Amino acid sequence: MKIPSSHPRARSLRHREKIVQGVEQGITSTAGLIAHGRGETFDYLLGEKTHSFARKALQTATAALLTARHPVISINGNVAALLGKELALFSNRWNIPLEVNIFHHTKTREKRLVSYLKKCGAKKVLGSGSGRSKIIPSLAHARRKMHLDGIAKADVVFVPLEDGDRCQALMKMGKKVITIDLNPLSRTARYATITIVDELTRVFLNLEKSMETLHRKSPRFLKAILQSYNNRNILRLAEQTLRRRI
Amino acid sequence: MKIPSSHPRARSLRHREKIVQGVEQGITSTAGLIAHGRGETFDYLLGEKTHSFARKALQTATAALLTARHPVISINGNVAALLGKELALFSNRWNIPLEVNIFHHTKTREKRLVSYLKKCGAKKVLGSGSGRSKIIPSLAHARRKMHLDGIAKADVVFVPLEDGDRCQALMKMGKKVITIDLNPLSRTARYATITIVDELTRVFLNLEKSMETLHRKSPRFLKAILQSYNNRNILRLAEQTLRRRI
Repeated sequence: MKIPSSHPRARSLRHREKIVQGVEQGITSTAGLIAHGRGETFDYLLGEKTHSFARKALQTATAALLTARHPVISINGNVAALLGKELALFSNRWNIPLEVNIFHHTKTREKRLVSYLKKCGAKKVLGSGSGRSKIIPSLAHARRKMHLDGIAKADVVFVPLEDGDRCQALMKMGKKVITIDLNPLSRTARYATITIVDELTRVFLNLEKSMETLHRKSPRFLKAILQSYNNRNILRLAEQTLRRRI
Repeated sequence: MKIPSSHPRARSLRHREKIVQGVEQGITSTAGLIAHGRGETFDYLLGEKTHSFARKALQTATAALLTARHPVISINGNVAALLGKELALFSNRWNIPLEVNIFHHTKTREKRLVSYLKKCGAKKVLGSGSGRSKIIPSLAHARRKMHLDGIAKADVVFVPLEDGDRCQALMKMGKKVITIDLNPLSRTARYATITIVDELTRVFLNLEKSMETLHRKSPRFLKAILQSYNNRNILRLAEQTLRRRI
């Protein structure tokens, strides 16, 4: 299906196509399609644009990534389908490893995801279900595994599209969690250190720019950004915006 | 996957499973999964319950179906996956034919849907893409076909989960359109004669009861219900509720 650029919903339709392709390639789960639809509704209600609360959270996330000792980006099937190439470039440019960590876990799908990201050009890709893994305490489901050189070691975990339980478990381990969640009311949004209430691909476009700008700044400047940040206020602003726009 | 009844999200997870099974059986499109996710968000925001504006619309829809000369129910892949058996029983009990009419049209999927509904026990199942079909004016896409003994002849078309263009085209043909749409702001919701802002399976549970109660009433009583109904007011109430609940 070719989507003309003139179509008013072209961007949204292209994302939908990418997710459907992800399912066909075996890297995205069918449940991931439903999750994508849930996100679409929130984005639609928020006017499909980046609001100031998201810019503030993104700036803080950038500062957290730049000051981290061991940052890592946790990847699931939807994120890979939508942003495989962009993530590979980002990971290489900033030397932040990618860890494949999927909710609806199968070994086959994990392997496919790892090789897909490598094919996209990523140099450091870890699989949570591989030999060198450890268990995240207090988590029952399949996603309790984490890689020793990835999430286990990380002080800052960037998990776009996380689920509530795991976000809470990572926080309990003392890690900083950055997440992208279009639902400001979700458990993930409320548990995380930094919640970017915005659409995934817009976030990554802005993140690249933000990293280029902020990596020239002093650690002191970056720490001041982190200290002045209040995730609760950000979520409150997002909620208000959601309510006002309906 | 077995979902325990004790799970707080059991109902929602079971629906999700049914839609995924629908895709595996080839009766639901992958795009249908994304649409299901969009609906989930609205249902979540509305508190996953039947509100008074939905009850009022449902009562009016019942009156419209009971006073119709040629009612028909238009079925797509999501509706069949979620409610195949219930719809078959409903169609037989009230002598309302089912017409398979799908947005992402393929002959194979239409055939599968027709035979699936027959397997569920439905006696009158029509396929829009079959020989006895006609074109809905002013519609460009594949869903422009309608069956001569179904939608083409109908005065009242019940289309759960419709798209905006087609809803508008049916209205232009002078038909009464009843729809179920969890988004009170959608074009479908605004174009339709009667919009039930509620979750599909809850609507059908209530519709069965409502039909049993109202079919005993006089045509005059039913017409009074129809005349006192104002879809705009209903949508305004739904919007207000959505805003208040966030």
